[in-house]
Amino acid sequence: MRYELYYWPGIQGRGEFVRLALEDAGADYLDVARERGDEAIMPWFQGEYSGLPPFAPPFLKAGRTVLAQTALILAWLGPRLGLLPEGATARLQAQQLQLTISDLVVEIHDTHHPIAASLYYQDQLEAARQRAADFRRLRLPKFLGYFEGVLARGDGQHALAQHSYVDLSLFQLVTGLHYAFPRVMQRLQPQLPQLHALARRVSERPRIAAYLASPRRIAFNENGIFRHYAALDTRR
Amino acid sequence: MRYELYYWPGIQGRGEFVRLALEDAGADYLDVARERGDEAIMPWFQGEYSGLPPFAPPFLKAGRTVLAQTALILAWLGPRLGLLPEGATARLQAQQLQLTISDLVVEIHDTHHPIAASLYYQDQLEAARQRAADFRRLRLPKFLGYFEGVLARGDGQHALAQHSYVDLSLFQLVTGLHYAFPRVMQRLQPQLPQLHALARRVSERPRIAAYLASPRRIAFNENGIFRHYAALDTRR
Repeated sequence: MRYELYYWPGIQGRGEFVRLALEDAGADYLDVARERGDEAIMPWFQGEYSGLPPFAPPFLKAGRTVLAQTALILAWLGPRLGLLPEGATARLQAQQLQLTISDLVVEIHDTHHPIAASLYYQDQLEAARQRAADFRRLRLPKFLGYFEGVLARGDGQHALAQHSYVDLSLFQLVTGLHYAFPRVMQRLQPQLPQLHALARRVSERPRIAAYLASPRRIAFNENGIFRHYAALDTRR
Repeated sequence: MRYELYYWPGIQGRGEFVRLALEDAGADYLDVARERGDEAIMPWFQGEYSGLPPFAPPFLKAGRTVLAQTALILAWLGPRLGLLPEGATARLQAQQLQLTISDLVVEIHDTHHPIAASLYYQDQLEAARQRAADFRRLRLPKFLGYFEGVLARGDGQHALAQHSYVDLSLFQLVTGLHYAFPRVMQRLQPQLPQLHALARRVSERPRIAAYLASPRRIAFNENGIFRHYAALDTRR
């Protein structure tokens, strides 16, 4: 099975959570728009596809299955790629955690775009400063404290009973947050030992390490979800 | 099986999407915090529960299963309540649509709270005006146009091949949006005939009609997701 991932080329974005799962599993996949450009994505939204259309990228094509929504793509891929412990409970817990990660991703995005994705960051800077202040003070510590607690409950190594796509997504969260908010994360790091140990272990998995060192890993940049703007990364 | 729904009393909020499924199916359920107050929710976040804790309400307890995240609760309840067509494809499509509804719900909430949930609406009014303007002009028509297209693809009656929890959630969306943005929705309504016909059909389902007329249906109010603020509901 060759998977086809459809996501905007040029950013990690939400597609990166899917890429990490495909890479960690050594799956055969095509990152379609990086090969063929944005044009490859458009027909899916213009009525040329007779199935249920996606609302937005990322979406995955696997044979005749076409699936959108990051958390759902991962829930579907998990058992197929060996990235989910056995059993119904693990499957539900993985989805619950991944959906909570998705919620945090929206809040991270909205620190730099609190008014509208259709406007530039510079045109919503004052609102971004205010939203980021609340995010640094309340929302980010609450989310990361939650995930730290989840790791502390388990075997101290994984979010679930063994390695899963959730661990890969937590790695991406921690890594992206250190890129976007280095000062804030430096301050929070002592309270988040398990999350940081997890991120380090994931980065050392052979296929992940190879991926991160390859040109397939797009660098973080100021078009994606995790953007570094000094004005949003203050100590207070 | 008696289901226990945990959600903030006093608002419809995200819990309402679950309530509508339970009500439509005639399920035996307890709306725990409406019976016992907020205090019933707190212990789940304070380490008194040894399973995977929820990050936030709503969550559902069903025997020994405890599940959070609205879309996941509905995915789990769907087949148990007869609110999902048979088959793997329908199950995935329902989840994909429900997650897209969840994305819209966040954007609806953020029209009145673009800066921080921890601040009053009045303290983020200028940002709310700006965010709502983009929402009215771009985001809302895009989302509702997508759902209208989904209905137009099918049998003209349902989002999937037959009645499902997705239809109940689309009813809630349309109804809530008419409460919050009556002028905007009046303008958009001619372009959304299928969504409005669906909402009417759902409202006439006997158990839903009985529920809506009962004291169990909390009225829309300015503490929930769908809030009516005239400043955000302008013609332009």
